[in-house]
Amino acid sequence: MTACPDHFIALAHALADAARPVIRQYFRTPVDVDDKADASPVTIADREAEAAMRVLIKARFPEHGIFGEEHGRENCDAEYVWVLDPIDGTKAFITGKPSFGTLIALCKDGVPILGVIDQAITNERWIGGVGHPTTLNGVPVRTRPCDALAKAYAYTTGPEYFDDATRPGWDRIAARVKLPRYGCDCYAYALVATGFVDLVAEAGLKPYDYCALVPVIENAGGKVTDWQGRAVTIDSPGTICAAGDARLHALALEVLRG
Amino acid sequence: MTACPDHFIALAHALADAARPVIRQYFRTPVDVDDKADASPVTIADREAEAAMRVLIKARFPEHGIFGEEHGRENCDAEYVWVLDPIDGTKAFITGKPSFGTLIALCKDGVPILGVIDQAITNERWIGGVGHPTTLNGVPVRTRPCDALAKAYAYTTGPEYFDDATRPGWDRIAARVKLPRYGCDCYAYALVATGFVDLVAEAGLKPYDYCALVPVIENAGGKVTDWQGRAVTIDSPGTICAAGDARLHALALEVLRG
Repeated sequence: MTACPDHFIALAHALADAARPVIRQYFRTPVDVDDKADASPVTIADREAEAAMRVLIKARFPEHGIFGEEHGRENCDAEYVWVLDPIDGTKAFITGKPSFGTLIALCKDGVPILGVIDQAITNERWIGGVGHPTTLNGVPVRTRPCDALAKAYAYTTGPEYFDDATRPGWDRIAARVKLPRYGCDCYAYALVATGFVDLVAEAGLKPYDYCALVPVIENAGGKVTDWQGRAVTIDSPGTICAAGDARLHALALEVLRG
Repeated sequence: MTACPDHFIALAHALADAARPVIRQYFRTPVDVDDKADASPVTIADREAEAAMRVLIKARFPEHGIFGEEHGRENCDAEYVWVLDPIDGTKAFITGKPSFGTLIALCKDGVPILGVIDQAITNERWIGGVGHPTTLNGVPVRTRPCDALAKAYAYTTGPEYFDDATRPGWDRIAARVKLPRYGCDCYAYALVATGFVDLVAEAGLKPYDYCALVPVIENAGGKVTDWQGRAVTIDSPGTICAAGDARLHALALEVLRG
């Protein structure tokens, strides 16, 4: 696959730079537990951060499409489509926990070729693209070898995110790995790319939840597919199996499928 | 209860200051998944950080006792006993996730009168003591009101930490709260003290896991007991019900007891 052009990488950084101050402004501002969802700080931060990113994309590449969690789809038949989730992990955000992240992906013909996971509070930015090895704050990172489920550290956001069709798959994984862990949101995928977590399995994700993760992990040496083993695209079913080592990925797929 | 003397507060800060560089030195250093536990970075960091803290306590208050996770008990019949867990959340640490913390407590006649939750990577320090309102990096924090389980954001580290006797209690809580969440270790208690989380329920904890949490939350306006509603001491059974609002605490206790 052709390398992701540098000017797309530069825009991805600019988008994350634009989202950060908005997110920081609203993080850990008082939340009334009786607030309606529409008025919550996380909703306001989500909307404002995505709006800021959309302005930059339209100014730089007006011919590109945009698919954002908050403000929907525009021109999504274009060759290039930016897929945005300003705050992935809204429940972490709203409880004051910096494991949420800003997810930015660029898809070419539906295939993610560039991804960013940005943590606005800890100031950590993972970016990876085709032909651009994944970096954390500019320093290259790599996944680590892991050839057996019994050796693997595995994460998922929470057992309550699976439905009746997918929960048995996670339960089988949890029973076989060295350490099943919860509550990390997109940060877990960044930790796979950095070589400290071996496996993440989730289900029920939307394109803005998963597109950015794929280039970050794959350009660090890992492998990401859906639970059927198919390459992930903007039209995938939303099951994700992400591993730092392709051998572990193959083993995990078998167990997820049952 | 008499206010915690200032020179104890000063030592608590000095202990956390001593632990931080040790922890930072080992965080996200490469971990071979085949490593034996004895040689893991987290074990080394745990031991070295606790050793550094013990030296300071013995130099300043040689008559005090010390109860540490790594190096055990010394002089624990003393009036004052320091209770230390250099890295609470070793599994978070080993997977590169900064939700672990350094826990430091001072007990007087077995009762926690001073507590620190220190996060060495995000540079966040919560400290609270009798007569010393809880602060985060020097700024006072407060719990928030929450008078119903249906409005509460509740955390526990993971469903796998409960045993057959305690899991039903958590399951009932999880079914009734607004949002059950996982994977936060001691950081969840800090978020209660800061007014972003309403409830934490855990079981199977050791004194070095829970003593520090009590003064941090109670001096921010919250309430902490065991699942029987008894005040927490160094000899408690290790079940913890921590809430930001005493009304919610009472409701949660009823549900935990079944």
